[in-house]
Amino acid sequence: MKILQQLCEIHAPSGDESPMKDFLLRYIRKEMKKWKKKPELFHGDEFQDCLILKFGKPRTAIFAHMDSIGFTVRYHNQLLPIGSPDAEAGTKLVGTDSLGPIVCELEFDRDNHAFYKFGRQIDRGTGLTYQVNFTETKDYIQSAYLDNRLGVYNALKVAETLTDGVIVFSAWEEHGGGSVPYLAKFIAEKWNVTQALVSDITWVTEGVLPGKGVAISMRDRNIPRKKYVDRIIEIARKRKVEFQLEVEGAGSSDGRELQTSPYPFDWCFVGAPEAHAHTPHERVHKRDIAAMIQLYEWLMKDL
Amino acid sequence: MKILQQLCEIHAPSGDESPMKDFLLRYIRKEMKKWKKKPELFHGDEFQDCLILKFGKPRTAIFAHMDSIGFTVRYHNQLLPIGSPDAEAGTKLVGTDSLGPIVCELEFDRDNHAFYKFGRQIDRGTGLTYQVNFTETKDYIQSAYLDNRLGVYNALKVAETLTDGVIVFSAWEEHGGGSVPYLAKFIAEKWNVTQALVSDITWVTEGVLPGKGVAISMRDRNIPRKKYVDRIIEIARKRKVEFQLEVEGAGSSDGRELQTSPYPFDWCFVGAPEAHAHTPHERVHKRDIAAMIQLYEWLMKDL
Amino acid sequence: MKILQQLCEIHAPSGDESPMKDFLLRYIRKEMKKWKKKPELFHGDEFQDCLILKFGKPRTAIFAHMDSIGFTVRYHNQLLPIGSPDAEAGTKLVGTDSLGPIVCELEFDRDNHAFYKFGRQIDRGTGLTYQVNFTETKDYIQSAYLDNRLGVYNALKVAETLTDGVIVFSAWEEHGGGSVPYLAKFIAEKWNVTQALVSDITWVTEGVLPGKGVAISMRDRNIPRKKYVDRIIEIARKRKVEFQLEVEGAGSSDGRELQTSPYPFDWCFVGAPEAHAHTPHERVHKRDIAAMIQLYEWLMKDL
Repeated sequence: MKILQQLCEIHAPSGDESPMKDFLLRYIRKEMKKWKKKPELFHGDEFQDCLILKFGKPRTAIFAHMDSIGFTVRYHNQLLPIGSPDAEAGTKLVGTDSLGPIVCELEFDRDNHAFYKFGRQIDRGTGLTYQVNFTETKDYIQSAYLDNRLGVYNALKVAETLTDGVIVFSAWEEHGGGSVPYLAKFIAEKWNVTQALVSDITWVTEGVLPGKGVAISMRDRNIPRKKYVDRIIEIARKRKVEFQLEVEGAGSSDGRELQTSPYPFDWCFVGAPEAHAHTPHERVHKRDIAAMIQLYEWLMKDL
Repeated sequence: MKILQQLCEIHAPSGDESPMKDFLLRYIRKEMKKWKKKPELFHGDEFQDCLILKFGKPRTAIFAHMDSIGFTVRYHNQLLPIGSPDAEAGTKLVGTDSLGPIVCELEFDRDNHAFYKFGRQIDRGTGLTYQVNFTETKDYIQSAYLDNRLGVYNALKVAETLTDGVIVFSAWEEHGGGSVPYLAKFIAEKWNVTQALVSDITWVTEGVLPGKGVAISMRDRNIPRKKYVDRIIEIARKRKVEFQLEVEGAGSSDGRELQTSPYPFDWCFVGAPEAHAHTPHERVHKRDIAAMIQLYEWLMKDL
Repeated sequence: MKILQQLCEIHAPSGDESPMKDFLLRYIRKEMKKWKKKPELFHGDEFQDCLILKFGKPRTAIFAHMDSIGFTVRYHNQLLPIGSPDAEAGTKLVGTDSLGPIVCELEFDRDNHAFYKFGRQIDRGTGLTYQVNFTETKDYIQSAYLDNRLGVYNALKVAETLTDGVIVFSAWEEHGGGSVPYLAKFIAEKWNVTQALVSDITWVTEGVLPGKGVAISMRDRNIPRKKYVDRIIEIARKRKVEFQLEVEGAGSSDGRELQTSPYPFDWCFVGAPEAHAHTPHERVHKRDIAAMIQLYEWLMKDL
């Protein structure tokens, strides 16, 4: 799990994903020699800070977003949220500006506006993320940013044995999106791939519990096509992977942008459930991580 | 009106439109032998559960959404809305799960959360729709799902005499959309068609009354291009069709997705007004249905 | 500044931009003989009411929206907002309907619903805009619709010396957008241009003051790519243009649609700050207008 910890520790709030892309590129170039099939890599200006891996003759694409929630420094010590962070006063935030590295503290005023406490003023526009405290117990992983570094980790694990498929590392998911439309266009036009799996982290709810298997989300704020979701559930049953069915009215993912793209994408959110979502101490059961990787391996074969 | 009743009775909440598509395919294949011009049919994986009919040399496309509002079964008897249903406690809901057909009852708790009352637990993710009670009087049709089975019916009636045009049966309209972007792309790229009419049902308001003619909507939450709407009003005047002008600040339709598509679509919502929208007893004046069909016939000729 | 006044006085609320396009076409055809480089003009049905100017070998596009906020006449003297107007009771509104020109007065009822006071009923769907009172002092310009006629003016001033670049005059920006997706598609596919500058007007805030230079917005509701914004700030520093950094959590622009388009657009909002935004008396410091034009001239060279 050392690689998962490294992934969690990378500073890459929405809009500033290049450190994650650089890390992934280095990692993949080194590791892919050991993989069952060597993928073709697509990146560069045409893909902004995103990255695509193509294996063999793809039918299905895994989308894993690289960005995280966080804060942007405004003026007068004010902070604006990136995505929907959920942290208590006193949380340590880190970043870098023109004067060097920053470790500051999150505060709130009476109207619940966020600001920072630090010995000096921080440059306007500086992105801050949670200081990461990664811990592992017998059953659990706990860390900031398991959402979605665990989705990225899942994709990298699946990559080791993948023969046919696409893996897309996307940006801006936590803050309104913006990369999936052109990434979807690229894979639909180039390889005619319009089946997608959203490798992301869902929330522990009253109906989806830790340690009970990977969650297949039948809907969130968006409703994927029933026919496609039914196929995924059928494969999970047939392959005897431990899974749970999630049905939500809120929440969204890269799936939203796939659904509204001008290509006929089918998509389904498949991911481990986590407790304490968007806090600095997100927690996921290891059993569910194992089930997630296992299900993705089967889905990439059977879909 | 037997066909309208059949359309209303089909279970096809957003995301599960395939029963409607299958019905339409069967109906159209049978009926089109009698039509003035035989259309070319486009459907299959590339169109998910949607369906396109192309007649002659098209200039204008009719968009009619097939999906309806409804509910998704969550857990612990909870229901999540599909779109914006508006029904009272005690309303009968129908659907099917792995144990067979369901007729259950809608309930609400004190916080106005919806749940179902039924003799057994229903599978997670099951879609439920209103039990349909279709009635016809001298002046009115009353039924669940006139929105938008009446828009579909209108398209089928227009199809009987249509020589040049496209008819698009779309999905997900009640719940955020998702099919119009690729359908719009297809017809714009294939036939250079970027004029659209949204065959859908609007609401009776203080300014738009039942029995006073089809409504031409000059705006809703979205604002179509004035030049295009003006042409439609001019044709309605010239052809002496009974119509009313609607001007709304809320509400949306397939027109929203046409407007924001990467093709220069002009669109206008043209449809009969209904009372009791999104309830199980939507009601439309027959005179307005006749005016709607008549106006569409002219528009497809004159635009 | 005579041309700026003329621009402010044109009635072109969202959806009814053709008067602005017609004015711009006439102006540009006349003036471009004096420009350093003669642009190629793109307009017509394929562009609805929009207009594109292409100079030389473009790398970067300026987006300036032509539309303004305003009101749509409903029925019973009701008015619906176009975009987010912010005006007091008694404000004079102008427009034209089938009976001729209108100068009426804005009123509000107790629930803050807008309506008009006029000697006769106004046609449904008629668009009304503020009566423009353009004034110039030593330091300031004050007028309705500096947002965004000043952005249009900026583009026209930059055009005088531009050798390589695209200028896009867009529509519907104040009311949900709808033209940027196809305009972005056109320039990305035709000239491979995916760098954009949003020539629009931002708001005076506690951190961005009048007379302190053009604002470079590091984020608003949307977050542009950090790498691109950093390049723009670097150019502004290097070229010694007077600028301020804005960091906002709300507000949106043509940048939003560029970000979510299926093309990998980088964008940044660069514009003078104004006081009293969306009122009939928007006010901008002349020093900031000069800095805005100057910065755009450098950016179009250096990016």
